[in-house]
Amino acid sequence: MYEAHSDTQAVVVIIDILRATSSICTAFANGVSEIIPVATVEEARALKEKGYLLAAERDGYLLDFADFGNSPFNFTPEKVRGKTVAYSTTNGTGIMKMASDCHAVVIGSYLNFSALCSWLEQQQRKVIIICAGWKKRFNLEDTLCAGAIAERLLEGGRFTTACDSVHAAVDLWHLAKDDIIGYIEKAAQRSRLRDKGLDDCIGYCHTFDVTAIIPVLRNERLVTL
Amino acid sequence: MYEAHSDTQAVVVIIDILRATSSICTAFANGVSEIIPVATVEEARALKEKGYLLAAERDGYLLDFADFGNSPFNFTPEKVRGKTVAYSTTNGTGIMKMASDCHAVVIGSYLNFSALCSWLEQQQRKVIIICAGWKKRFNLEDTLCAGAIAERLLEGGRFTTACDSVHAAVDLWHLAKDDIIGYIEKAAQRSRLRDKGLDDCIGYCHTFDVTAIIPVLRNERLVTL
Repeated sequence: MYEAHSDTQAVVVIIDILRATSSICTAFANGVSEIIPVATVEEARALKEKGYLLAAERDGYLLDFADFGNSPFNFTPEKVRGKTVAYSTTNGTGIMKMASDCHAVVIGSYLNFSALCSWLEQQQRKVIIICAGWKKRFNLEDTLCAGAIAERLLEGGRFTTACDSVHAAVDLWHLAKDDIIGYIEKAAQRSRLRDKGLDDCIGYCHTFDVTAIIPVLRNERLVTL
Repeated sequence: MYEAHSDTQAVVVIIDILRATSSICTAFANGVSEIIPVATVEEARALKEKGYLLAAERDGYLLDFADFGNSPFNFTPEKVRGKTVAYSTTNGTGIMKMASDCHAVVIGSYLNFSALCSWLEQQQRKVIIICAGWKKRFNLEDTLCAGAIAERLLEGGRFTTACDSVHAAVDLWHLAKDDIIGYIEKAAQRSRLRDKGLDDCIGYCHTFDVTAIIPVLRNERLVTL
């Protein structure tokens, strides 16, 4: 899937439900001004030293010089309103940079689902949904959200697909949608978060339409569309 | 998934249902002595010039110096019994070479399904199922067969998985298994084969247990286990 990133005419939606893109949507809903995605620990440290608020984890563990970690619950209005936050994650950040040649790179999650789908329908463009996955591997929770978005777009009648992964994602979404939380019990990331005591946000991260904000990448920073 | 190939303790099953691994299983069922997988057109030509029978396509089109193409129906007893056949395909061959550091590399399809699953159950080893896919992308038809194998192994109780792609494959298999041919109508490869008039083998390639032979890679050649 990854070579598709270089389509300069396409809109790219990045999905990392547990937890990067859910946290980014939450941060904007709570008034963050900008988010600077950072790919490396060194970059994260440099931005912290420049005075930015830093959210930074590696494999679910807080970096010791960070202000807070990756849970959406950390991005409270009190902490982030009007601020620029540097944000480092294991998966999502690198993908944003990889996709940055495309026409637009936006952030998707259940939290901004309907607003995102409506906006995508208004674009006269190919849509590429990139699931962040885990260490370059497939994961269930991102695939389900991709399937939900694809189903919505295909139902609208303006989109078609010849991509087997879209069909598979839609079919998995159909299987899971009546009990998403139950379905992702078998997801590896579900177990990882539980093992680290980081699973309090699972329900929240699968809540539809908490915000209508669509974060978009501009000049290597995330801002509101 | 592809970095997993380097697990020297694992048994790797390669699946390319439409049509490479179905054709390879058919060739052995019909008495082929050895198959030499070749990755490039140049290699294919060199082996043809050495006198080997050559089955070779690129993107579904017969190479002009080949003896026949990739359809399993080409590998008749009359043509292949007792022969060594050089075999070049778009996807499968490269993967076989990539996985060749593993403990064993075997060829899977519906055609040798039960024999393959029984043999895998007897090994005390990790099993990696590699779907050849299409130009490094996910496809439905290989994923379904992987799901069928995984379901059988997991039901047997000797195997567990913490791999989201296995769960997804098993769930897709459950969705498809009562009407596999109907389900893969939406697969891109289904359309490609139809467009090229190469889809007469679809039903055959989804037939269980035509043979009990398990082709295995030894010294860069496929032989019977």
